[in-house]
Amino acid sequence: MPIFSQNQATTAENLYMNATRRGLPKEKMTDNGMMSRAKVLTIDNMNPTVKKVEYAVRGPIVQRAVELERELSEGMKKPFAEVIKANIGDAHAMGQQPITFFRQVLALCSYPELLSDSTFPEDAKSRACRILQSCGGFSMGSYSASQGIDSVRQDVAQYIQRRDGGVPCDPDNIYLTTGASDGIVTMLKLLVCGEGTSRAGVMISIPQYPLYSAALAELGAVQINYYLNEEACWSLDIPELQRAVNEARRYCNPRALCIINPGNPTGQVQSRQCIEDVIRFAAKERLFLMADEVYQDNVYADGCQFHSFKKVLFEMGPEYSETVELASFHSTSKCYMGECGFRGGYMEIINMDDDVKAQLTKLVSVRLCPPVPGQALMDLVVNPPQPGEPSYNNFIKERTATLSALAEKAKLTEQVLNTVEGISCNPVQGAMYSFPRITIPEKAVQEAAEKGQAPDMFYCMKMLEETGICLVPGSGFGQKDGTYHFRMTILPPKDKLQILLNNVKEFHQRFTLQYS
Amino acid sequence: MPIFSQNQATTAENLYMNATRRGLPKEKMTDNGMMSRAKVLTIDNMNPTVKKVEYAVRGPIVQRAVELERELSEGMKKPFAEVIKANIGDAHAMGQQPITFFRQVLALCSYPELLSDSTFPEDAKSRACRILQSCGGFSMGSYSASQGIDSVRQDVAQYIQRRDGGVPCDPDNIYLTTGASDGIVTMLKLLVCGEGTSRAGVMISIPQYPLYSAALAELGAVQINYYLNEEACWSLDIPELQRAVNEARRYCNPRALCIINPGNPTGQVQSRQCIEDVIRFAAKERLFLMADEVYQDNVYADGCQFHSFKKVLFEMGPEYSETVELASFHSTSKCYMGECGFRGGYMEIINMDDDVKAQLTKLVSVRLCPPVPGQALMDLVVNPPQPGEPSYNNFIKERTATLSALAEKAKLTEQVLNTVEGISCNPVQGAMYSFPRITIPEKAVQEAAEKGQAPDMFYCMKMLEETGICLVPGSGFGQKDGTYHFRMTILPPKDKLQILLNNVKEFHQRFTLQYS
Repeated sequence: MPIFSQNQATTAENLYMNATRRGLPKEKMTDNGMMSRAKVLTIDNMNPTVKKVEYAVRGPIVQRAVELERELSEGMKKPFAEVIKANIGDAHAMGQQPITFFRQVLALCSYPELLSDSTFPEDAKSRACRILQSCGGFSMGSYSASQGIDSVRQDVAQYIQRRDGGVPCDPDNIYLTTGASDGIVTMLKLLVCGEGTSRAGVMISIPQYPLYSAALAELGAVQINYYLNEEACWSLDIPELQRAVNEARRYCNPRALCIINPGNPTGQVQSRQCIEDVIRFAAKERLFLMADEVYQDNVYADGCQFHSFKKVLFEMGPEYSETVELASFHSTSKCYMGECGFRGGYMEIINMDDDVKAQLTKLVSVRLCPPVPGQALMDLVVNPPQPGEPSYNNFIKERTATLSALAEKAKLTEQVLNTVEGISCNPVQGAMYSFPRITIPEKAVQEAAEKGQAPDMFYCMKMLEETGICLVPGSGFGQKDGTYHFRMTILPPKDKLQILLNNVKEFHQRFTLQYS
Repeated sequence: MPIFSQNQATTAENLYMNATRRGLPKEKMTDNGMMSRAKVLTIDNMNPTVKKVEYAVRGPIVQRAVELERELSEGMKKPFAEVIKANIGDAHAMGQQPITFFRQVLALCSYPELLSDSTFPEDAKSRACRILQSCGGFSMGSYSASQGIDSVRQDVAQYIQRRDGGVPCDPDNIYLTTGASDGIVTMLKLLVCGEGTSRAGVMISIPQYPLYSAALAELGAVQINYYLNEEACWSLDIPELQRAVNEARRYCNPRALCIINPGNPTGQVQSRQCIEDVIRFAAKERLFLMADEVYQDNVYADGCQFHSFKKVLFEMGPEYSETVELASFHSTSKCYMGECGFRGGYMEIINMDDDVKAQLTKLVSVRLCPPVPGQALMDLVVNPPQPGEPSYNNFIKERTATLSALAEKAKLTEQVLNTVEGISCNPVQGAMYSFPRITIPEKAVQEAAEKGQAPDMFYCMKMLEETGICLVPGSGFGQKDGTYHFRMTILPPKDKLQILLNNVKEFHQRFTLQYS
């Protein structure tokens, strides 16, 4: 705390008097009787909704992981040689390679002088030209339209139409975003309203991806939990949705239903039937549907297939396709691309009221535009090299290699974890994570309570300190009371993943022994 | 409105019953007596704070400009050959060239295979390597730390320290952002609290950059206007600040004071004395200072110089430097770079309470990280080629050319506009805009009123239709009642700017004649 010097006493006194007169926070008296100035902005008078925000994926355990990395680099001795961050779906950081074609086009767009470089393939050049022609002054440094570059939105619409077997898609319903998170928060923002028992409620799965709970906390909306059925491979059961909405109507105004498919953190892939049932439920209960489909290419398990909410909605006929309001989200960060750092994404809105849509367009204009390199990348994702183009074969090779490796690692993770007594892991059907259930001995639960920690936070923190493996405790995503989990990405290279899984296994056995 | 078919009447009826029972919006009856489903999300039940948001820089006039461009491209006849968008500080779109070195490094970072290309200068390569080494997996596709890449924050801190004549800067106080807008909104978010007469108030200049009013509307904070003194070259007068805060204390809790220097839309550059007075005022009135300094390199007028709030604060001694809370903002979008599309930026926070800072760090983690290409670009801006490095001379040449051209265009704009009777324009001392005052004849004011338009909106819309020039009416930024202005960027190339100014002149004369 800064201290006023003696000769500034008069000023300080004046300030004190001023503050007191106005009923403002008083300056604090320090040990030596001097006055130190109280802060204008304090934890007590800051925005209370911000304080309620929690985001476990980058919470205390990750902060400790960063500290440990620094300690290691400073030569401090640890029982491990490196910290492995399996807490976040950060593919490139785990060694996944970017798609060559995408990066070539981005380099060409960044520095168009390269367009005359004969080492770049022609299809990369023509793609870069097309993107740059849609940018003011032929530069990615220009602002784009707030909704996103027109030609990119057209390409997104065509991609969706292809993906959904010809169901029409209007580019005017596409909004490019700064990663999917941005789109999700923007949509939630539109839905928030009311006070007391009329306050807007939003249904989210438990376990959930904590962006949802964080955004709802910040926006002051009510979080309505519906529980996925762990015993049935994290399935989404309609009676549970019904229970949740019925209970919620007593204390809030349920307005939206959020679904993550393929699931994060739970890795399940929903069946077509399930999606149809969810749409029927949303129509019956008058809920705005939000479908987080950022893992749409990450489907590994036999018999599983990605079905978009949009496609199923349209297959259900006009009673649904012309009425149910839906926003769906995609991103450049996941699937085979893993380009998180570019913050590219889009959302498609269906059946949105025209006046609300105008408000949405106005709202996104305040932030000017999503990052243009991310928009360019989104364009490449939805419009990759085509058969016959020079980059096609290599693109397919790279994409297949990444997706096959992920499928293999999904299986490996499930298999190894299920060999451990006290760990049980549902099949990783899709996405990039396993979310195994762990048994934590009563003695450890007690020790955690003494430390004021959730039992699985205590478990994960201990694992980090002993093995250098950074996971996220299940409590950060939500789970049924009395159950414990962790989320672990399947992203490390296979040999490293094998070692990691063995270390998890050994740690779990040691931990169980220690606290039994 | 979609209509249920006859055979779906039962379902529709059920839905109607359900809705009625729950007191939800009823389905609407259409002309033929069928029921059409009411939307879940409507203009009446959406977030009311979003509805209050306005953002003139991309408002109706720009939407009309886009329409006109489309009509022109479809061969429709207009009294002009092209639409000139002088509404927004979008430098590259107006033909300003990117800095070669910046784009070379970005290309190298996007596609590191180019590191072995001998046509790239060595300093660009080493800079790209340094950035990539700070990225997980040597890839810009990895998430960075939420606060931004460590090495970039270090470079920002060193830049600030150099800029401010050695005043120390801690990288831990630097947060990289998605353009400056993101940082400004995040800071405002922390400050919001209270209800009724305790509701947080934020002082902003009038005229202002409408991001501020938009963010305050969305956050439900009170906007406290203080008026810049147009007669004294848009100076900021302390008695006016005092008037504004005194009045505001009757109905809200003034917590922060926002300053834009160099000014947007008004182009003034504040004197060191003025900044010192503002700091004293903020200390006395216990206001958190927010200094929007994104135009710090855009200073043209003789005798004007940019003084950062940070530097002045520290020169005022510990009574101020250790107590006054300050956030300052910078961006890659303006100055000589004009790289708007990359959405790069940073904020520095001074004297922020440690607990609040922890909340800020948590809050930014929910959005994972600012776009990494924008972070890389910010790094290059704060750490450009140094004397002796291969790219130095060319960098200086390009930067100087851009800044000299802007200085010339600032002067030209002021001079030409001041030759027009009924237009009076303060010197464009800095930033990228002129904000001239215009006389609008009473008859035009009346016609505007009949159309439900602000008089200067009516004027600008007419100018757009007749000349293709897109400006923003002063009413979008705020102005003293009964005065009218427009904001025009000085960015078009000189020959084009000359034509544009002549067209504005002719339009104004025609308009005045027509309505006199």
